[in-house]
Amino acid sequence: MVQFIITIGSTETAKIDGISAAGATPALMVHTPRADAEIVTYGSLAGAPVVPVSPAGCPTPAVITRAVKERLRFETVIVDAGAAKESDAPAVSMPSGPGEDIRGSVAVPRAQPVFERSKELGAAIPDDELFIGETIPGGTTTAMGVLAVLGEESTVSSSLADNPVSLKRDTVRSGLDASGIEPGGLSGRPVEAVRRMGDPVLATVSGMTVGATQAGKSVTLCGGTQMSAAAQLVRHTGCNEAISQATTTFVANDETTGIQRMADAASVDLTVTDPCFNEKDHPAMQAFVRGEAKEGVGMGGALALLNRSHDVSSVHTYIEDVYERLIAEKPR
Amino acid sequence: MVQFIITIGSTETAKIDGISAAGATPALMVHTPRADAEIVTYGSLAGAPVVPVSPAGCPTPAVITRAVKERLRFETVIVDAGAAKESDAPAVSMPSGPGEDIRGSVAVPRAQPVFERSKELGAAIPDDELFIGETIPGGTTTAMGVLAVLGEESTVSSSLADNPVSLKRDTVRSGLDASGIEPGGLSGRPVEAVRRMGDPVLATVSGMTVGATQAGKSVTLCGGTQMSAAAQLVRHTGCNEAISQATTTFVANDETTGIQRMADAASVDLTVTDPCFNEKDHPAMQAFVRGEAKEGVGMGGALALLNRSHDVSSVHTYIEDVYERLIAEKPR
Repeated sequence: MVQFIITIGSTETAKIDGISAAGATPALMVHTPRADAEIVTYGSLAGAPVVPVSPAGCPTPAVITRAVKERLRFETVIVDAGAAKESDAPAVSMPSGPGEDIRGSVAVPRAQPVFERSKELGAAIPDDELFIGETIPGGTTTAMGVLAVLGEESTVSSSLADNPVSLKRDTVRSGLDASGIEPGGLSGRPVEAVRRMGDPVLATVSGMTVGATQAGKSVTLCGGTQMSAAAQLVRHTGCNEAISQATTTFVANDETTGIQRMADAASVDLTVTDPCFNEKDHPAMQAFVRGEAKEGVGMGGALALLNRSHDVSSVHTYIEDVYERLIAEKPR
Repeated sequence: MVQFIITIGSTETAKIDGISAAGATPALMVHTPRADAEIVTYGSLAGAPVVPVSPAGCPTPAVITRAVKERLRFETVIVDAGAAKESDAPAVSMPSGPGEDIRGSVAVPRAQPVFERSKELGAAIPDDELFIGETIPGGTTTAMGVLAVLGEESTVSSSLADNPVSLKRDTVRSGLDASGIEPGGLSGRPVEAVRRMGDPVLATVSGMTVGATQAGKSVTLCGGTQMSAAAQLVRHTGCNEAISQATTTFVANDETTGIQRMADAASVDLTVTDPCFNEKDHPAMQAFVRGEAKEGVGMGGALALLNRSHDVSSVHTYIEDVYERLIAEKPR
C-alpha cells in the first residue's frame, strides 16, 4: 500500500520580500503550510483563515493533491516540521520548530534530532511504499543553500512565474558569508548542511527517506528542485538505495532549472507528469499553465500515482469540485 | 460526510493495580493509546512496541474499528489529549499532558485550556457529522469520578469481564476526600469537575461536542459509560443540542451499568449494535463474547456506522484480516 506524506514547515528565510509566491501577501504566507495540510486532510479549511493563493491568484497545489486523493481515495499523513501556526489537521510532530533565516549562521538548530526522529518515522510507517511531498514557503531558496554547501548544482525552480534567481543567489551568498562556509564546504556532511543552510522540512524528508529505504520500503519524492536537494542530502549520508522522484511538466519545462540533470546527478529515477491543464479553461488550472506555482504539496507525486491507473484528465472535474468548495468558504 | 475521531490519553489513575484491562500488564498499558491510534490509522503498528491485549488475551477494540474502517473506507482523525508515549500516528495535539491520579486534589491541571481548544477544534473540523471515540486506560474510573461530582448516576462499565466496582468506588471516594468535594458538589461546573476528578480525554470529548453541536454539526459519542460522562459534562455546560451515542450490546448487557438509563438522564439518543460475534469461533471475537473489553476506540460507533449501509456480519472477515496482520507482526 502507498502512504502519502506531506511535510509542512516554515522558516524566517521565507519572509524575505519577493522570495516566494506561497501566499497572497507575506503576512498571509505564515498560514500556508497549515492551510495546505487542512485542505489535503479534510478537503477544505478547518482552523486556517485563508485559502493560499499566489500574489497572481494561483490557488495552492494542495487543491490538485486533494483532488487526486478524492479520485483515488488514498490516505495521507501530515508531518509537522515546524509550521509557523498550529494546524487543525492531525500531524506527526518533529522536534524542530520553525527554521531561522539562512542569512544568519544557523538555519535549523535542531537538525540532528529532527533527522534522527525522521529516520525512525520513515522506518516505522508500516506501508511498503511512501510518497513524500512538502509545503514550506521559501523552500527553493533553502534548497539552493543546501545544494551549494554540498557542492552540487543549485539551479532551483520557483513558485513565481518569474523566478527571482538573483535574489535567491544573493540570499544564499549572504548565508555562506555569515556561516563562513565555501560552496562545497559541507560535502558529505548533510545534517550540518541542513543545520547551516537548510530548513526543517529538508531535514525531515531526507531523514524519512533514509529510514524508509534502509527498511526496504520504496520512496518517491514528490516535487521539483526542493526534492532534488532532499535526494542529494540522502546521497551525502552515504545511502545508495533506489529513490524515485515525481514532478510536473511545469517544473520540467522551467528553463531556469535542470530537473532531469539534477535527478541524474543524484541517481534518482525521475517521472514527469503532464496534468493536461491546457485542456481546461478553469482558473485553478490556467494559472499553472501560465507558470504559477508549478509544484508543491505533493502535486507531482499525486499526478504520477493517478497516472498509474487512470487518465490524468479524469481528475479535472475533481479539481473543479475542490476549488469551488474552497472558494465558497467564507473568510473567518 | 462523517469524520471519525479517536481521542487518546493517559492518566496516573490507570496505574492503580487491577483497575483496567487496557493492556496485558500495567507496564505495557502505557503504550495502549498510541498503539490503538497506529492500528486505527495504519492498520498495523508503526512505532508502538506491542499490540494491546487484555490480561485475558482479548485484542484491543481498535481491531474492530480498523476493520470497519477498511470495510467502509472512512477517514479518521486522532486527537492526542496527553497520551503517555509519543505516537507515530498523526494527531491534533491538545495542550493537556497526561492526567494525574484522581486520588490527589487535581486530576487535569489544564482542563480549562483543553476544553476551550477542543471547542474550537469541534467547530473547525469541516465535516457535518462527527463520530467521537476514545482510548484511555482507566477511563471508566475517571468517568465515575466526574459523574459523582456532577451528582449524576455513576454506574460505570469495565474492560474486565469482572467489573472491579468496589475498587473504582474506593478510588473515587479517596479522590473526593482529597479534593474536599461532596458528591454533586460540582453540579453545573463541568470544567471544574474534570479538573478535579476527570481525565484529559473527557475534557476533549466534551469540549469538541459542545463546539461541534453549537456549530450545527451532528455528534455521535462512540462508547459506553465514559461517553455517558462526556454527555453529562456537555449538559452541565448548559448545552442542550441533540447528541447521539453508539455502543455495543456488550456494554448494554452489562448488568453492573445502566447505559440506557444514563443516556435518558443526559437526553442522549442511544444506539446499541450487536456485532454478532457469537456467529464466529475466532479469538478476536470470542473474547468479546466472554465479556472482555466490551467497547473502546470507537468500536460501538464504527459498528453503528457500518449498520447504516451493511449487514454487520460483513465485517467479520475484515476483523480476521486485521487480527492476522497484527499477530503476524514481530515484537520490536
